[in-house]
Amino acid sequence: MNYRNLALLTDLYELTMAACYFELGMFEPASFSLFIREYPPNRRYFVSAGLADVLSYLEELSFTPDDLEYLQKTGLFKKEFLDYLKKFRFTGDVYAIPEGRLFFSNEPLLEIRAPLIEAQLGETFIINALNLQVMIATKASRCFHAAWPRKLIDFSLRRTQGIDAGLKVARACYIGGFIGTSNVLAGKIYGIPVFGTMAHSFITCFQREIDAFRAFARVFPENSVLLIDTYDTINGAIKAAEVGREMNKEGKRLKGVRLDSGEMSELSQKVRKILRESGLTETQILASGGFDEYKIKAVLDGGGDIDSFGVGTKMGVSADAPYLDMAYKLVDYGGRPVLKLSPGKMTLPSEKQVFRFYSKGGKLEYDVIGLREDRFEGAEPLLLKVMEKGKVTLKLPALDEIQKVFLEEFSLLDEKFKSIEPSEERYPISVSPSLNHLKEEIITRIRKDELGES
Amino acid sequence: MNYRNLALLTDLYELTMAACYFELGMFEPASFSLFIREYPPNRRYFVSAGLADVLSYLEELSFTPDDLEYLQKTGLFKKEFLDYLKKFRFTGDVYAIPEGRLFFSNEPLLEIRAPLIEAQLGETFIINALNLQVMIATKASRCFHAAWPRKLIDFSLRRTQGIDAGLKVARACYIGGFIGTSNVLAGKIYGIPVFGTMAHSFITCFQREIDAFRAFARVFPENSVLLIDTYDTINGAIKAAEVGREMNKEGKRLKGVRLDSGEMSELSQKVRKILRESGLTETQILASGGFDEYKIKAVLDGGGDIDSFGVGTKMGVSADAPYLDMAYKLVDYGGRPVLKLSPGKMTLPSEKQVFRFYSKGGKLEYDVIGLREDRFEGAEPLLLKVMEKGKVTLKLPALDEIQKVFLEEFSLLDEKFKSIEPSEERYPISVSPSLNHLKEEIITRIRKDELGES
Repeated sequence: MNYRNLALLTDLYELTMAACYFELGMFEPASFSLFIREYPPNRRYFVSAGLADVLSYLEELSFTPDDLEYLQKTGLFKKEFLDYLKKFRFTGDVYAIPEGRLFFSNEPLLEIRAPLIEAQLGETFIINALNLQVMIATKASRCFHAAWPRKLIDFSLRRTQGIDAGLKVARACYIGGFIGTSNVLAGKIYGIPVFGTMAHSFITCFQREIDAFRAFARVFPENSVLLIDTYDTINGAIKAAEVGREMNKEGKRLKGVRLDSGEMSELSQKVRKILRESGLTETQILASGGFDEYKIKAVLDGGGDIDSFGVGTKMGVSADAPYLDMAYKLVDYGGRPVLKLSPGKMTLPSEKQVFRFYSKGGKLEYDVIGLREDRFEGAEPLLLKVMEKGKVTLKLPALDEIQKVFLEEFSLLDEKFKSIEPSEERYPISVSPSLNHLKEEIITRIRKDELGES
Repeated sequence: MNYRNLALLTDLYELTMAACYFELGMFEPASFSLFIREYPPNRRYFVSAGLADVLSYLEELSFTPDDLEYLQKTGLFKKEFLDYLKKFRFTGDVYAIPEGRLFFSNEPLLEIRAPLIEAQLGETFIINALNLQVMIATKASRCFHAAWPRKLIDFSLRRTQGIDAGLKVARACYIGGFIGTSNVLAGKIYGIPVFGTMAHSFITCFQREIDAFRAFARVFPENSVLLIDTYDTINGAIKAAEVGREMNKEGKRLKGVRLDSGEMSELSQKVRKILRESGLTETQILASGGFDEYKIKAVLDGGGDIDSFGVGTKMGVSADAPYLDMAYKLVDYGGRPVLKLSPGKMTLPSEKQVFRFYSKGGKLEYDVIGLREDRFEGAEPLLLKVMEKGKVTLKLPALDEIQKVFLEEFSLLDEKFKSIEPSEERYPISVSPSLNHLKEEIITRIRKDELGES
């Protein structure tokens, strides 16, 4: 995607508020904090993903003459403000939890400090990028957990919500433990391994199913995964096995078969038997069709004999939780820490840090959300400075490195927080005494000033 | 979005199948049909949307040297095939139900006839584009139905699944009856009216809430919608009314207030009373925060006194149905009509047409899915030829025109199919005798040839 021309990809109010700040001369530094209020159903952790896009966006953010002409035509903005936008660049600092790390509800994933307008203007894009990618990396990690040690491939592109989602989903699910994607453009852009089999249309193009199998095996002798459910899965497996034996005679090997419908636990066992009886012990069984963490678990609990899963739509849109309760809130303006009191939406004031504590065995034990300047011995501060004065300061790791970060930390999280089922377990998080104190102080002040309470 | 470089935005199997067809010399014309198998929960119709993107994509589809270099590096493709891709263009015909029209389950929304590889290759993008936009236009129409005659504005951009979705959602919900969007880029690209209010951060930037209200009203005297729930909604309404009275004295008018949290039925009545008592009879109440068709209905049924709704996340991701069961299936190859028998996924063979029958009063009465060459007196054929030999042949209507098409046809659909609640009602659809006959013929042939039945 091209991030050079996304300045207008924003809610109108970001620009009207900015115009107001401009006219009132409100240019003091502001701090905003991004966090997720509540866990979606059955989740008890989040996987950080999407930071790379946010940093590119902030580095490139500027208004084209075309953009300014459109804004002028809306009739909402004065010339002086449009002149200001003409030279607009983001010059602030960003702290963030790196991609691949685990984090928990109410923990700041990202904090921005910049002159008020600069810190405000990116809100819409920043939430858009992080909401999607954290949601998908988290969903993918649940599939990874349910399927382990079996392999997972992203098959979601046709039903991701748009093409940008198609790319970001491929990247985010790779972070969350997938081994590859069917999405060729994601393969090209991100260097993710690409995988593919064949569609039912390939089978129906041929007079007979076995003709289709033979044709594909001839063109891709090293890479044939035959789709066997077009007419009848067992019948298809028998034909695939026949083609597999023919390949063996020529010194080739049938890489796999794909099941795409029906009751997979039983079917996969029967198909395995057919393959074994033909001596095709290395031929893999790939299953696809409506899989997510719940169906993976159900099919495996039912005795499914499957080597890998093509996981599509339900992962690609995070179907059971298609959005996060993610917010980007002002926490400090001009050195004055602030918060909002709206029911169910209260925020933590000031610039913060998340401190992670480990057990003696190296496992994740608990987190403390504190003020940025808090210090706790033996704790790891999770937010790193990733951008200073508008320039990226932390070398962004390669995607494989990010996946490694995830795999490593996920292995250190207690199983009870990884369960895909409903549970009352919550990872232990507390608020530091200094942050709590500040929050209470501000609430008292608001109650007095705004609501007339004493 | 730039559709010139989306040739690789496809599942790898589209390309491996194409390589196979190329090597086998399978260039005969194929027909594919796109349809939605099942209604998502509580839906009983769909709104056509997304065709414009599909046609742009097909017109522009080509492989860049960069794309071909990547494909070559995968090691999967022979030079001859890559040379073929170098000159690849889509040269086929497309029939489709125009945007804004209503259609129903199993009805072909789009049919493509082209040399096999050309007809196959676009599958992933075509489903991606239509799945999202039909889903959102349909969801939006449900919000429109629940809110009517109140106005709806798209507030979803921050939590749409990516930036392409952000744009397509703004367009699709406009088709489905929304009056505008907060998404400035969508406003610029599609000419959709843009709307905005203010964020909580705007309020908290100021020492006091009323300072924020006064500042905004001064900069936007014609366009101030004040957000009143940052600390306490009733308290905020009293302050907004004070600012409204101040504006009246200067000959200005407070455009509106926005509620964003709390129990909206009761709150909106109380806020209305406060506004009325201040003589602010023209000041509108806009409600936002977790709205979809269900919450709109609940708040209005509860006596909510609201003029317009900002509808965000749940519409923008179609939260209760975040994907459609949309498929793109081969229905004819080389003059041989085909289908697949996979359990629950059987298809209708051959090129088709949808015939719409109207009652004497002009209401939608029933549809017949038939063969393309079927003729029914008094019926309207819904699929129009929109592309011939790779060139768009039907002038694409402006977005306002498409919305009019929707509004007109939606008014002709019986209320029982529009209900947002669960219901057993289904719009009457039948399959023509000639299509049914063809389908039975092919099933008999497959049972005999593939499954050895007699």
